[in-house]
Amino acid sequence: MNVLAFSGSLRQGSFNSGLVRAAVELAPAGVVIEQADISAVPLYNGDEDGDSKPAAVDYLAQQVIKADALLFATPEYNYSIPGVLKNTIDWLSRVPGSIFAGKPAAIMGASMGGMGTSRSQYHLRQVLVFLDVHPLNKPEVFVSAAHQKCDANGNLTDENSREMLAKQLQALKDWHDTLKG
Amino acid sequence: MNVLAFSGSLRQGSFNSGLVRAAVELAPAGVVIEQADISAVPLYNGDEDGDSKPAAVDYLAQQVIKADALLFATPEYNYSIPGVLKNTIDWLSRVPGSIFAGKPAAIMGASMGGMGTSRSQYHLRQVLVFLDVHPLNKPEVFVSAAHQKCDANGNLTDENSREMLAKQLQALKDWHDTLKG
Amino acid sequence: MNVLAFSGSLRQGSFNSGLVRAAVELAPAGVVIEQADISAVPLYNGDEDGDSKPAAVDYLAQQVIKADALLFATPEYNYSIPGVLKNTIDWLSRVPGSIFAGKPAAIMGASMGGMGTSRSQYHLRQVLVFLDVHPLNKPEVFVSAAHQKCDANGNLTDENSREMLAKQLQALKDWHDTLKG
Amino acid sequence: MNVLAFSGSLRQGSFNSGLVRAAVELAPAGVVIEQADISAVPLYNGDEDGDSKPAAVDYLAQQVIKADALLFATPEYNYSIPGVLKNTIDWLSRVPGSIFAGKPAAIMGASMGGMGTSRSQYHLRQVLVFLDVHPLNKPEVFVSAAHQKCDANGNLTDENSREMLAKQLQALKDWHDTLKG
Repeated sequence: MNVLAFSGSLRQGSFNSGLVRAAVELAPAGVVIEQADISAVPLYNGDEDGDSKPAAVDYLAQQVIKADALLFATPEYNYSIPGVLKNTIDWLSRVPGSIFAGKPAAIMGASMGGMGTSRSQYHLRQVLVFLDVHPLNKPEVFVSAAHQKCDANGNLTDENSREMLAKQLQALKDWHDTLKG
Repeated sequence: MNVLAFSGSLRQGSFNSGLVRAAVELAPAGVVIEQADISAVPLYNGDEDGDSKPAAVDYLAQQVIKADALLFATPEYNYSIPGVLKNTIDWLSRVPGSIFAGKPAAIMGASMGGMGTSRSQYHLRQVLVFLDVHPLNKPEVFVSAAHQKCDANGNLTDENSREMLAKQLQALKDWHDTLKG
Repeated sequence: MNVLAFSGSLRQGSFNSGLVRAAVELAPAGVVIEQADISAVPLYNGDEDGDSKPAAVDYLAQQVIKADALLFATPEYNYSIPGVLKNTIDWLSRVPGSIFAGKPAAIMGASMGGMGTSRSQYHLRQVLVFLDVHPLNKPEVFVSAAHQKCDANGNLTDENSREMLAKQLQALKDWHDTLKG
Repeated sequence: MNVLAFSGSLRQGSFNSGLVRAAVELAPAGVVIEQADISAVPLYNGDEDGDSKPAAVDYLAQQVIKADALLFATPEYNYSIPGVLKNTIDWLSRVPGSIFAGKPAAIMGASMGGMGTSRSQYHLRQVLVFLDVHPLNKPEVFVSAAHQKCDANGNLTDENSREMLAKQLQALKDWHDTLKG
C-alpha cells in the first residue's frame, strides 16, 4: 500500500512535516509513505489552467493517481486550512479524471496551541466531501503544544503522540483494505 | 469610508472580480471601494516570514491598515475558501499589530453552481473570528448561476444581483457607522 | 439490506418525511427502508441518563443496531441541524456499545429556500465523524424550493428529485456492499 | 445592561450551568445576568407552531426581547450543539419579530475533553448568522478538563477560568456599548 503524504507547511522545521517524517518511520508492515513536495505549485489562476497544467501539478497528480491512500498533516492558520495546502488541492482538483475520488485518507495535525489543528481538520473534511475522498473517522490525531513534543528540527519525539500516529496509520491500512475489498 | 475589496480569484474574467467592480460602481455616497491586488503575494513559507515581509504583503498590509472596512468576494473551490485568497490572508495575519482587528466587513460570492459560494463563505466567517473582523450577518450575497448573470468579461449585469449588492454595501456602511460610533 | 431512516421534522406534512417516504418507494431491489419514529424521544437530560434509557430511546437503539445502513433526511433550522434530530442523536449516542460505529449512511434534505439544507448537512457530517458513521460523499441530495416539488401532504412529486434520490439509494447500497466486503 | 444566559445542559451538576452561575458572580458593575430556564421547552413540531407558542417559549421570548445581550454556555455533544439548546433556539426563532436580531452575545463552554466545546461553538456561531446576533470574537472561552476545574456541584472553582470569564464579560459589556452607540 502506497501512501502519498501532504504536509501543509513549507517551513523547514515544520511540525507537520515532522509528523509526516514520523509517519514514514511508523508505517505498519507493507505500507510505504512518500512525502509530496508542494513547494513548487504556483498560485492557482484559472487563466493558466488549460489542457496542460504546471509541471509541479502534473508531477503531484501522477503521485496521487498512483497512491492507494492519502495522508494530510495540516497546520491550522487563522482557524482554517493553510492557503498553501488548499492551493495545492485546488490545482490538483482541476486535473481531469477526478484523481482523488474513492481514495482512503487519514488526517493529522500539529500546532503550538491547544486544539491540535482541529478547526483546520474539519474544514479539510468538508473539502474531501467534494473530492470524494474517504477520510478515517478515528482515531483523530491532534498534536497540541507541538513545540514541547518535537525537537528543534521539528521531529516528533513525544512517545504518546508517536503511538497515536502509529495507531492511525494501522487504522488507515485497515480502512484501505476494507474499501478495496 | 474607505473599503478594501479582495477578490479570491486571479482569473481575468473572474465573476468575483466582477462583483468587486460592480461594488465599486454601486457604492453608496461617501463610500470608496478599492480592489486589492493579491496576484503578487507569494506562497506562505514561515522561513521567509521574518521582520520584513514580501513587498506585495507590505503593500496590502498598508491598504488594510488604512481601510475603514473590508469586502471579500470569494469563489468556492472544493467546498471552501480558494487557496489563493486564504494564502493572502495567512500572510497578512503575520503582519505585526493585528491589522484586521475590529474592522467591519462584508462577504459576497459568485459561482456557476447553485449555492453561490455559501460553503466557502461560512469557512471564511470562521477565519474572521480569529482575525477579529466583524462581518455583516445580513444581507448575505450568494450569486449562483453566475455565468447567466455576468457578461463575457465577468461584469455583473443581473439587476436583482446588483440590487442585492447595493443593499449589502449600504448595510456595510451602516454597520461601520455603528461600530465606529 | 435494512436501512433505518430518520426525518428531522415532526410536522405531519414535512418535506423531509416526504423524502423518506419517497426513499421507501425508490429503494433498489434488496433494500428495505424503515422510518424511525423520533417523536417520543424526550429532551436529553444527563440526570435521566442512567443504566436504563427512556423507552423511545431503547426502541430506536434496537433499530439502529439492526440496521445495515442509515438514512438522514434533515431540514435546516437556523443554518444547522434541527434540535429535534440532534436531540435524538444525542440520546442514541449515550447507549453503550457505540451503536452507530461503522455503519454506512446517506444524507438528504429538503427546504423551501435555495440551499436544500446544505448548511445543516455539513454540520451533520461533523456529527457523524464523532459517531464513526461513514456517510456517502456523492451524490449529495439538496432539494431546494421543496414546496414546488412536493404535494400538499409533503409527498415528493418532482421527477428530477426522485431520480436523484434513487441514485443516492443505489450509491448507498454500493457503499454498504463495499464496506461490508 | 441585562444579559440573558442560556446553558445548553439540563443536568443539575452541569459544568455549563456552572459557567452561567460563575458569570452571574463575575459580571462587571452595571451588568445583571439572568439564567434562562429551557427545561420546559417542548420538542419543536411545526404543527404546534401557530399564532400561539408554548408557554415556556413565550416566557423565554419575553426575556430575550428584554435582554440587552445574550450569553451562551454550550456543551458539545457529538461534535456539535446539544439538541436541547438548538431546540430552544429553533422555537425562539419562530416568534414573530426576529427577537434575536441585532443583539450582542458572548459564547463560552466547558467540557471534560480537551477542546472546551470549540466544535459546538463554531456551529453555534453559524446559527447566530441566521439569527442576526453579533457574537464577540474575542476572548473565546474554552474550559477543557472541566471536571478538574469545577467542584462536585459544577461550580467553577478554577481561578484562571474565572478570570477568563470575567474578561469575556467585560468585553461583552464593551461590545454592547459599541453596538448601542
